[in-house]
Order: sequence, then C-alpha cells, then structure tokens
Amino acid sequence: MSAFSFRVAARDGAARLGRMGTAHGEVSTPAFMPVGTRATVKAVTPEDLRACGAEIVLCNTYHLYLRPGHELIRDLGGLQRFMHWDGPVLTDSGGFQVFSLSSLRRVDDEGVRFRSHLDGSAHLLTPEKSMEIQAALGSDVAMVLDECPPLPSSREEVAEAVRRTSAWAGRSREAYRGPGAVFGIVQGGTWADLRERSARDLLALGFDGYAVGGVSVGEPPDAIAAVARSTAALLPEDRPRYLMGVGRPQDLVEAVAGGCDLFDCVLPTRNARNGALFTSEGRVNIKREQYRRDAGPLDPRCSCETCRNYSRAYLRHLFLANEILASRLHTIHNLAYYLGLMAGMRSAIAEGRFEAFRREFEAAMAAPEAGE
Amino acid sequence: MSAFSFRVAARDGAARLGRMGTAHGEVSTPAFMPVGTRATVKAVTPEDLRACGAEIVLCNTYHLYLRPGHELIRDLGGLQRFMHWDGPVLTDSGGFQVFSLSSLRRVDDEGVRFRSHLDGSAHLLTPEKSMEIQAALGSDVAMVLDECPPLPSSREEVAEAVRRTSAWAGRSREAYRGPGAVFGIVQGGTWADLRERSARDLLALGFDGYAVGGVSVGEPPDAIAAVARSTAALLPEDRPRYLMGVGRPQDLVEAVAGGCDLFDCVLPTRNARNGALFTSEGRVNIKREQYRRDAGPLDPRCSCETCRNYSRAYLRHLFLANEILASRLHTIHNLAYYLGLMAGMRSAIAEGRFEAFRREFEAAMAAPEAGE
Repeated sequence: MSAFSFRVAARDGAARLGRMGTAHGEVSTPAFMPVGTRATVKAVTPEDLRACGAEIVLCNTYHLYLRPGHELIRDLGGLQRFMHWDGPVLTDSGGFQVFSLSSLRRVDDEGVRFRSHLDGSAHLLTPEKSMEIQAALGSDVAMVLDECPPLPSSREEVAEAVRRTSAWAGRSREAYRGPGAVFGIVQGGTWADLRERSARDLLALGFDGYAVGGVSVGEPPDAIAAVARSTAALLPEDRPRYLMGVGRPQDLVEAVAGGCDLFDCVLPTRNARNGALFTSEGRVNIKREQYRRDAGPLDPRCSCETCRNYSRAYLRHLFLANEILASRLHTIHNLAYYLGLMAGMRSAIAEGRFEAFRREFEAAMAAPEAGE
Repeated sequence: MSAFSFRVAARDGAARLGRMGTAHGEVSTPAFMPVGTRATVKAVTPEDLRACGAEIVLCNTYHLYLRPGHELIRDLGGLQRFMHWDGPVLTDSGGFQVFSLSSLRRVDDEGVRFRSHLDGSAHLLTPEKSMEIQAALGSDVAMVLDECPPLPSSREEVAEAVRRTSAWAGRSREAYRGPGAVFGIVQGGTWADLRERSARDLLALGFDGYAVGGVSVGEPPDAIAAVARSTAALLPEDRPRYLMGVGRPQDLVEAVAGGCDLFDCVLPTRNARNGALFTSEGRVNIKREQYRRDAGPLDPRCSCETCRNYSRAYLRHLFLANEILASRLHTIHNLAYYLGLMAGMRSAIAEGRFEAFRREFEAAMAAPEAGE
C-alpha cells in the first residue's frame, strides 16, 4: 500500500546517489532533513525550506503527541496539511526525546513510562503506541521504537538494548497501520558484534529502510564515522540508510563516504539562532566585533536569501538587538549551507569525484574561523 | 534638492486621496507606516512588507542612534541599504523615545539630556543633533525635535511645550543637511488656541509636511479624533498631514475622515506577537480554546500569506508552543489587515463613497469578537 521506493542511481566507493520515493514526492539522497520539532522548522516557512533546497523534513513524535496531540493533527488532515509542507515527512519514534526530556522514566519490555516535561502528566510509550501516533500524524517514514542507551553504557546494557530494540522492532512493524514506510533502527553501540546481531535481527524482520541509531550521544567524531561505515556495510544495498542525529558538516561527509543516505540534526538550526553560522570560508560567530562594519555578505559563495540581501553588519545588529529576524535569516543561511553541501556531495558522486570533493572539503574545514 | 512632493488627487468630505513622492518611490495616502524600530519591522522581511502592501516604513532615531549608531548606518549606505528596504523611510526625531524609555531626563531650551536605557551612558539630544542623526540615516522624511508633554499636563506646561517646540522646529529646519523632507509637529494638547498657535508658528517657518503630535499618550478615542480633525483643518491643503502614533483601526478611519494622511503605530505588530489579531470578523485572540481544532483561515476574507496557507488551529499551536513562526505569520496578517484597510479607504475616497465605507466599518467594529 505504501508509495515508498528507493533506488541507487550511482555509486562512488561506498558513497551512493539515490532516489527515495514517497506519497509526497521524491527525495534525492544523500539528503539532510531539517528538524521541525513541533511541526515547524523554527523561524522559517515551508517556502523558505524549499528555497533552501529541502526535500524532506523531520518532525518529533514526542513533542507532537504531547502538544497539540496526534489525533488533532490527524483530524486536520495530517502533518503536511497542518504545517503547510507538501513534501515528505519522517517522524522519529518519540523514544529519544522521552529519554532526553521527560522525567521519571521507567523502561521495561512493555515500553517506556514517563512524565511529560510540559505538565508532568503520566504516559506510556509502547512500540504499538508510537506506531499509532506516527500513523495518525500521516508521516511518510515512521521509525520503530528503539532503546538508545546513554554514553557510557556497559556491554551488558547495550546488549540488553539490542535485544529489546529487536523485540520492539517486530512489534512496531506488526502494529503499523499508517500510509508510510517503516524503518528499523540498528543499535549496538561501538561493539561490532552487537551491531551485527542487531542488524541481523532487523533484516530478518524486513524493513523499508534501516537507521543507524545510538550514535550522536556524545562519542568522538571518529567513533561516529567508524560506526556509520561498519553498520552501513551490514545493511542491504537496495534500502536507504539513515544515520540518526548526525551532525556537523564534516560528520555528514564522512558518513556519506561510509555509505549513509539520510541525516537529521538540530545543529544548523540551533546554531543559527545562537548566531553561529556555517560558511564556505569557515565558521562565523556573528556577534564578533570584527563584523560590526562588515558590508559583505555572510558567505560570498552563497546565494541564499540572507546572503543575497543582507550584510554581516546588519545581521550582527539584528542578533545583538535580539531581533526575531536574526533567527530567521540565520536559519535560512545555515540550512542553505547544509542543503548545498548535500547537493555538492550528490553531484560529486554522480560524477565519480567524491573522494576529491571530500579531500577539498576537509582542507577547507581545517581553515581557521573566517577573519581569525 | 529634496525629491519630495505631495499632491491631493481626490477629496471626499475632509478625507483626501494623495500621492507623496520621495527619492525612494511614491506612497499613496492615506498610508499606514509599519514601525521598524531598530531597522527591522519585527519578525518580517522587506519582501513580506511589500507583499502586505506597505509602501513606507518608520524607523526610530533614538534606537538607531544608540545601536548600531547613525554613523555606522551612514557609512554602510543609509537605512534603506542597511535594512534592504528599497522604499521610503520616515524617521522620528528620537524625542518621544527619550521621554518614554530613557532615564534621568532633563529638558531645557538647549535640548534633552538623558541616559541610555541600554547602558546608562549620558547623551544630549538637541534639535541640531536629531537632524544630524536623521540626515546620517538617510531618511526620506525627517521629523523635527519636539516636546511632547505627558498626560495629564497643565495648560501652562502644554503652552511651554508649544513655545519650545516652535523654537526647536526653527532650529531643526535650519540645521537639516540631509537628502529628505522635513515635517514640523503641531503640539498643544486639547487646547484649541494652543494648537492654533503651534500651527501658526510652524506655518510661518514652512515645512514639507505637518504632523499632529502629542496625541496617543492615553487620551480617550473621541479626544484623538477631535484633535486630529481640528488640527488637520489648521494645516495647508497641499501638504501631507501625519497623525503620530495612532492607532486602532477605528482611530485611523476617524482620522482619515478628519483629513489626516499618514499614520504609524506599533499596535498591529505588537499585538501580532501577543496573538491578538485583527480580522474582518472582529478581533481574534488566537490562544483561545475555541480555535484548537479550527481548520479555517484566520480571516476568510483575507488573502495574505498567513490566511492562504495556515489554519487557526496551526497558528494557535505555534503561539502556545512559543514558536518564532507565530510572530512572523501573525505580523504578516495584522499588517495585511491594516494596509488593506488603508487601501479600502483610498478606494472609497477615489469613488466618493467614504462616508458609506466609514459607516460599514463602524458597524463591523461593533460586532463582538469572532466566535463569541
């Protein structure tokens, strides 16, 4: 019933160029998904997202379940209609936010009991409940409920999370009655054999796509890249691979080199609101005195709305005056940077020059902050 | 040297349809000027302003003088270039904010001594200084420094403010070396003879336009309308009349009926950020429970970006979740409402049916809040 499809159009080393089809349109991969936590990517409209090059957004099940509620969104025609975004939406399972935001969590094989960070109300998130919520939201890609152990966790704790994640994956897949695809999530921390076991369990169940979970919880960048690469190698060639919650631009390049296709992270949008901007010349901290009279654009090689129309001096003024427009213009730029990076990687893969792209990118990243 | 011009194209009773020419384009009057305090109309871009129908914006001299500084803006090419707004800009003199925001104010004939609300630094704002700042900003219309007495003030205090305002108006006019027009400001509170004296003094000096000042400091609406009407009648037919700081939609209609041409007020933008919205069906307080599942647009008769694309339920969700996008979408709608009201008045004047327009508008305003 699902309109979901995926095909690999080109390969360059382990890196892949792909097309993911959904009921709400196609996505070229490698793709970055801006995070629209509460059915809005903070400070920007769907038209802004399109102009930045976004083809898919991620929304957070935990937040939308608590407010305004998945049934309300279902009754109003689903997430796309609710937020006026006509492209694909991927939703997470809610599990990650339950662990990071709520209080009084208790996990057992049934699910996770927790209290809302908004009003302290008690809730039980089970695999079945997560899938029910995601079906009501109408997401194009639903994620199974998994258990993501914190860092550091013992091998025994991670092994237990793998066991529970596999059991929950089966129940999630069984319970899902929504319009979209369902992705399984590989856990296992940095233990190769646990990752293998987790992947084997999920492959036996069979999913539309597979995620690498349990990273981006504080590991060093090398560990993320290594886990992404080795886990991607365990996953089928003909399914998309989603590295959850990663990351910095250089992490994305490394993970694409390792064979990952989908990414999400709050970094570009959160940093934007804090005045920390990604440019082709390195990072820019807009509040610095050096930009006070700088009439140039944020990034001379960027053609986003912000770089076309505003100077660094004006952006600095807006940011220091705590003006709302600063968040909007900075978010537009950082997303344009991330989405431009993904487009650059796709072109490089298509043209068989991904390794050269990667080397050039690493050299540029090694440069100091612009103006330092 | 100034590119400034004004002509009355049609009259209907005391109401006038006019065209005001500036170096940055023409403005159809009656016109409402969105307030861009710190060189940004909060939460929206210049493109949003154009889409809402804005032809001119107002910026605040006090704020821009303190941060980022008028010399910086001058060196970066003036306000228009700084904020990426290619239309006309009117700046106030800074006096009103000195009186309302700063501390340790002391007024004498020289000017106003005050301390910055940002860092406590000491400043002296004189007529000459205000004009120097406004010239550096490059505004198309500069306002003379005036003394606006608070409410209540005695007749003696208001008479003294009229005397000082006239003296300062002469010095302002003499000192101005900028590219724009200069408007005088009529004071005099609710004393008809003081308003007459003030107007006579200013007319003797001769200005490109005249403002009605000293209203919108807490008077009842009837008093505003009466002062606007009687003061407008004292001013030349061939110059624009600007009613400063007013006001609610019904105040604008009354003041246009009384012969005023230009308006500014923070009400539509500030209310927007507080979730208080103006619609053709009356006021909407978006946080109300009644809008929780409301799939309809904010205003079914509005074609702004917000009403075209988003439901009341979604706007309520954004507002309650304290999302930045709520401020942006609400501001766009409230400005579209205000600017649409002005366009409606202009059409009515052009077609000789302003009194009918006014009666219909008053009847609609008398309706209870939508949904009550």
